[in-house]
Amino acid sequence: MDDMHVPPALRGLPHVVVLGAGFAGLTFCRAFKGHARVTLVDKQNHHLFQPLLYQVAMAGLSATEIAAPARALFRKRRNVVVLMDEAESIDLNKREVKLTDHTLEYDYLVCAAGGEKTYFGNEQWEQWAPGLKTLEDAMRIRRHLLTSFEKAETETDTGEQRRLMTIVIVGGGPTGVELAGSMAELCRQVFRADFRRIDPTTARIVLVHSGDRILEEYPEDLSDSAKRQLQSLGVEIVFNQKVVDVQADHVKLSGGETIDTRNVLWGAGVKANDLTKSLGIELARGGRVPVDADLSLASRGFADAFFIGDVASITDEDGDPVPGVAPAAIQMGKHVAKLIEARLDRQIARSEGAETNAPFRYWDKGMMATIGRKRAVAWTGDIPLIRGLKLSGFVAWLGWLFVHILYLVGFRNRVGVLLSWIYSYFTFRRGARIIISPEKDVVDRDAMTSSVRVPKPQDKVEAGATG
Amino acid sequence: MDDMHVPPALRGLPHVVVLGAGFAGLTFCRAFKGHARVTLVDKQNHHLFQPLLYQVAMAGLSATEIAAPARALFRKRRNVVVLMDEAESIDLNKREVKLTDHTLEYDYLVCAAGGEKTYFGNEQWEQWAPGLKTLEDAMRIRRHLLTSFEKAETETDTGEQRRLMTIVIVGGGPTGVELAGSMAELCRQVFRADFRRIDPTTARIVLVHSGDRILEEYPEDLSDSAKRQLQSLGVEIVFNQKVVDVQADHVKLSGGETIDTRNVLWGAGVKANDLTKSLGIELARGGRVPVDADLSLASRGFADAFFIGDVASITDEDGDPVPGVAPAAIQMGKHVAKLIEARLDRQIARSEGAETNAPFRYWDKGMMATIGRKRAVAWTGDIPLIRGLKLSGFVAWLGWLFVHILYLVGFRNRVGVLLSWIYSYFTFRRGARIIISPEKDVVDRDAMTSSVRVPKPQDKVEAGATG
Repeated sequence: MDDMHVPPALRGLPHVVVLGAGFAGLTFCRAFKGHARVTLVDKQNHHLFQPLLYQVAMAGLSATEIAAPARALFRKRRNVVVLMDEAESIDLNKREVKLTDHTLEYDYLVCAAGGEKTYFGNEQWEQWAPGLKTLEDAMRIRRHLLTSFEKAETETDTGEQRRLMTIVIVGGGPTGVELAGSMAELCRQVFRADFRRIDPTTARIVLVHSGDRILEEYPEDLSDSAKRQLQSLGVEIVFNQKVVDVQADHVKLSGGETIDTRNVLWGAGVKANDLTKSLGIELARGGRVPVDADLSLASRGFADAFFIGDVASITDEDGDPVPGVAPAAIQMGKHVAKLIEARLDRQIARSEGAETNAPFRYWDKGMMATIGRKRAVAWTGDIPLIRGLKLSGFVAWLGWLFVHILYLVGFRNRVGVLLSWIYSYFTFRRGARIIISPEKDVVDRDAMTSSVRVPKPQDKVEAGATG
Repeated sequence: MDDMHVPPALRGLPHVVVLGAGFAGLTFCRAFKGHARVTLVDKQNHHLFQPLLYQVAMAGLSATEIAAPARALFRKRRNVVVLMDEAESIDLNKREVKLTDHTLEYDYLVCAAGGEKTYFGNEQWEQWAPGLKTLEDAMRIRRHLLTSFEKAETETDTGEQRRLMTIVIVGGGPTGVELAGSMAELCRQVFRADFRRIDPTTARIVLVHSGDRILEEYPEDLSDSAKRQLQSLGVEIVFNQKVVDVQADHVKLSGGETIDTRNVLWGAGVKANDLTKSLGIELARGGRVPVDADLSLASRGFADAFFIGDVASITDEDGDPVPGVAPAAIQMGKHVAKLIEARLDRQIARSEGAETNAPFRYWDKGMMATIGRKRAVAWTGDIPLIRGLKLSGFVAWLGWLFVHILYLVGFRNRVGVLLSWIYSYFTFRRGARIIISPEKDVVDRDAMTSSVRVPKPQDKVEAGATG
């Protein structure tokens, strides 16, 4: 961006460009105290608390309860400029990031562009099997599921009624498990008293997993516990089978079985943001960037380019890949903030022994997944005092609740979410059970054709507008 | 609907069909205690607290905070069946209501289909000038306004930048006044610290009104007070002018002036739901139904068909038309509930002197409109003890706040909304400042082509899906 657009106060300062306002990018911006100009670019105008996204899809929380406007988070940090725009490509040699309508030159790049869902080459399945990465995804899933039950209530064809009341969830990772668990409760407890003709408790919920145990990253006994807890909620689990076809009214499994359904949720694949393809370097599995120990690309001659969060491919001391979880992203953000601060210091006067290329060490805080309203599995990893602890059931759920509320961004969200939970916990209702339909938005379509090039969200509006 | 679809427990009971889950329809269903089967039809799956809709559009509240799932409201009323469907026509002679996919026969009809926005024959303006009747409208307006400021932040063309930062609000009624007031505060206080390049406090907000005073139904001095309060917030008010053209980048006024803008909000006309056209009777102004004193069409030979809320045209004792406000709708709902109960009683054994065609008497509780965060105008109408009291400024706002929270449907909403307000009142932030884009939803489009005929919300999805 040409200098005339830089706020006067910030001109001449070193420029740090941060791509992505997820956990990694956001943590970097918050932790970074260096004397520099920071530009945070995200195609959304908000930071999303991903771990609770399934709650929005399941009508347990409303969209705004798990999102915080990126601008509001940095309103007091005058050296942070937030841009709602999408990075299209990165030129490591020129030190440039190309956005939809202009180019940013950087002194330091912090790429935290995050992950995207993938259908392993069958992207056409996306139309029938929405994934869960954005608020739009969650709203779409909620709208679709609620509408299916509304239709089932008036449906006269019993076959179609069954299809409408059958939910297939693909992928036995945390997302799939959490969706299956809360979906089961939605049907068995929340919907129970709502309908007059159909009996929502007879809804069929199938979790399809390609491996022989769900939550594969977890200790084996926790996987088993999760399996039992899901089954106790009435979830059918299909092991060792892949989905080989998805259509409007059914899915086919590798075992040959066909499941008639109008509701397929995709919790399977995650790959790095396609932005990494523009780097012109060989990428690791899932399009991730094989970074050096300090999370930069120094060994390739780009010591000023860092990749953190789900776009980074790196292993911990034991040689295990660092998982794509929030704690890892947060730790990476803090690590790189320190490195860049140290380098800026050195440009002025070497600060006492601050390392400028210290290796990143992943502190495994374990993992937790919730299974419905009062069940969960949790593993405490390397947390001192409670190292390696394995919890399941209600105790794990309380731990999960505590940790997630603790980390929720922003006062209002924390209180709002807490209330929503207390409320739905004791009443079994779902306050967010509202169907909001997308609609033509020609106003924004026009904006598309105006002199302003519009960020990705508008492109979606465009899609909605040409109907 | 053929009897096989009637829950066994309810078969053989007299059938009351209620169209619309707004204040009128909802109040009827809650007040009605007669021994009958009640079918509540609404094209949305939720009751919407209309008076706060502008807060959603202005990112002060999240959508779910002002909506309650219709099913949840009647989960304990086993004789109330909720259908998410749209009434297409009413046949008074056959006593039938045609829905999108089947027909309901009724013994008693309570039509509370509500109002729609109208552009007075210039419906094509809708694409540039969204109105504010549904949650979708509110989300669209929020998305559009927030996106305009995001674009302005990166816009290089100063002319376009001004258009993006100019908001024109058409109509000086309560909706227009409340939109203008909160929009002014959004720009001057909430956005102030959020942007780095643009100065949101310089945004231009113009309220265009066709008459010579805003809030025409209010006492004159309150209109003046509202005017002064708006102006103190920096809102320009144009009196005695109509909008004669709306385009993508400007509006033309009858006075000849052209205002360049990318943000036009329509707060002008309201007419009755088009459903009334299917009655085949002569309608009153705005397509309203000229009902008898008891809110039925007895004088036309249809004593079992009632019309309440915004679809009814009736005058009070003084011969003034009963306004289309929530209190009137609520009173009508209660009145008709009593009448139908009395008639059902009479079929069994005449209950002591319950009137079966008592005339409706409107109790004018006055009106109140808020102007931003701590201002309002209020008039207490015929409320005993405080009859005819006129309030303005902060006191009026407190009264407004009290009344609206009091009436909000559902525990969670009341607490959630109260919190949101307390929060944004003290912090000036807007937690709901989240841009959620509509997107392709081919899943639902398919459902369209399936054997299920889909209610209106889906039609909108269809519009979004063909992009």
